[in-house]
Amino acid sequence: MLGRIALVGGTHGNETSGIQLIRQWQQSLPERFCELDVTCQFANTEAMQANVRFLDEDLNRQFTQARLAADNPAREAQLAKQLNQQLGPKGSSQYDLVIDVHNTTSQMGATLIILEADEFHVQMARYVKQHMPEANILLEDEKPVSEHGYLCTTGTRGVMIEVGGQPQGVLREDVYQLTQTMAEVLLDFCVAYNAGTLGELTPCEVFRLGQEVGFPMAEDGGRDAMVHHALQDNDFQPLLAGQPVFKRFDGSEIVWEGESPTYPHFINEAAYAKLHVAFATASQVTL
Amino acid sequence: MLGRIALVGGTHGNETSGIQLIRQWQQSLPERFCELDVTCQFANTEAMQANVRFLDEDLNRQFTQARLAADNPAREAQLAKQLNQQLGPKGSSQYDLVIDVHNTTSQMGATLIILEADEFHVQMARYVKQHMPEANILLEDEKPVSEHGYLCTTGTRGVMIEVGGQPQGVLREDVYQLTQTMAEVLLDFCVAYNAGTLGELTPCEVFRLGQEVGFPMAEDGGRDAMVHHALQDNDFQPLLAGQPVFKRFDGSEIVWEGESPTYPHFINEAAYAKLHVAFATASQVTL
Repeated sequence: MLGRIALVGGTHGNETSGIQLIRQWQQSLPERFCELDVTCQFANTEAMQANVRFLDEDLNRQFTQARLAADNPAREAQLAKQLNQQLGPKGSSQYDLVIDVHNTTSQMGATLIILEADEFHVQMARYVKQHMPEANILLEDEKPVSEHGYLCTTGTRGVMIEVGGQPQGVLREDVYQLTQTMAEVLLDFCVAYNAGTLGELTPCEVFRLGQEVGFPMAEDGGRDAMVHHALQDNDFQPLLAGQPVFKRFDGSEIVWEGESPTYPHFINEAAYAKLHVAFATASQVTL
Repeated sequence: MLGRIALVGGTHGNETSGIQLIRQWQQSLPERFCELDVTCQFANTEAMQANVRFLDEDLNRQFTQARLAADNPAREAQLAKQLNQQLGPKGSSQYDLVIDVHNTTSQMGATLIILEADEFHVQMARYVKQHMPEANILLEDEKPVSEHGYLCTTGTRGVMIEVGGQPQGVLREDVYQLTQTMAEVLLDFCVAYNAGTLGELTPCEVFRLGQEVGFPMAEDGGRDAMVHHALQDNDFQPLLAGQPVFKRFDGSEIVWEGESPTYPHFINEAAYAKLHVAFATASQVTL
């Protein structure tokens, strides 16, 4: 039985589709969800006001037990402690489910990010795929949930909605509609889960996070190459050994030499540019 | 005769394609341009370092005589005075041509922005259209050049390259290649202009800037609507009276009631979101 559910937007202050969805649903939640105990709230209102991802540090990396216990004056570190009291506390939460709504500059379409493949999340993944076949499911179970720094881990269970491509600070209708649809499907799942009417759900294909791939760097500390146009915008499409991934500024190409096929995503995401991360890899698994 | 020419990137610190082009051409300018006196330089290195459009104020609005004379402590106002000494001074410049390289989140493709339709710029527009037929030419002659605040107005003549769509802080190969091609075509024009080999150039269609169109606002100061998906990404396509331009969050549509046809551009540009500008209009004229 899912009791309290939190739907959160504005964890990154320039990700507008989640912010707008919260704004809408705070005014009026679709009637079929009124039987659920759903709280719609913003996370980082100061960053929203400034139209930036964060002010001092990435809020969505603050929710490890170590960071929550540490004495860090950064505004987001302080905010994380408040939010952990409100939405958590992590490990013994008042909330049975926290859904955190994000968007990306990568062409990832509507993606549900889950952090573990236990029975609950397998059912959720299957339900989402069944009711929204265009959705991608991304499984980030490379470490235990307790060690993830994501805001959604304050809940007993936590997932993220990640939709793109949308530039930071911009609201696109297509991205907003996909975001709303995925949020509705997730709350429909909660209603069915509570009513015991999920029924038999068909196994589905999901993407399991592999590793981050960095940009080739020049000796002066700048980049030596950019994402190849053949890879750009092809998130979650199979990438095979020998296919181009980078174009050097001298015109030469760098081809993929890793696991084949792999499923690149977060391709050329603006927020990861500072870290010189070009994309992340994934394998396909059946849940 | 065009003597000194300046090619400038990083006027906005998160517009990566111009920054990368300057980085490349500082290392080695294509050989056919070596007969020209071209200086490749960055404008706002502090904003580039911080990966933001600007630190205090938009640098590309500082170059009116009034602002250049005013006592404004904003970092970009101070920087503008330095740049005006280096590239100008405006009104009696050491540079015959300043080309300032920008990018936009709007799907504007490769756009050349000119500020007046005198013989020089008409020839340039025709040459660019002839050698790069996919280019758009945007004429912003709604006020005299002297009253424009753009950095490129420090030169005796000044134009801007504006390419999109590209999220802020991201470098896309397609946008980079268009940027490089347009910069090459402009320098090819300079070579031909100096050699007197421009020949007869065919008149071309350009877009003349009309006015900015704001987002419909709600009573609480937030937006009441978003750019309609039928308008999104259709920069420079004709918009007719009765066609949808906005989608309200209640699902209803707002249709175009202005000049018909008009040619919207800078549709949903991230940098104008703060001002709640949804797009700019244009009419088509022949130069």
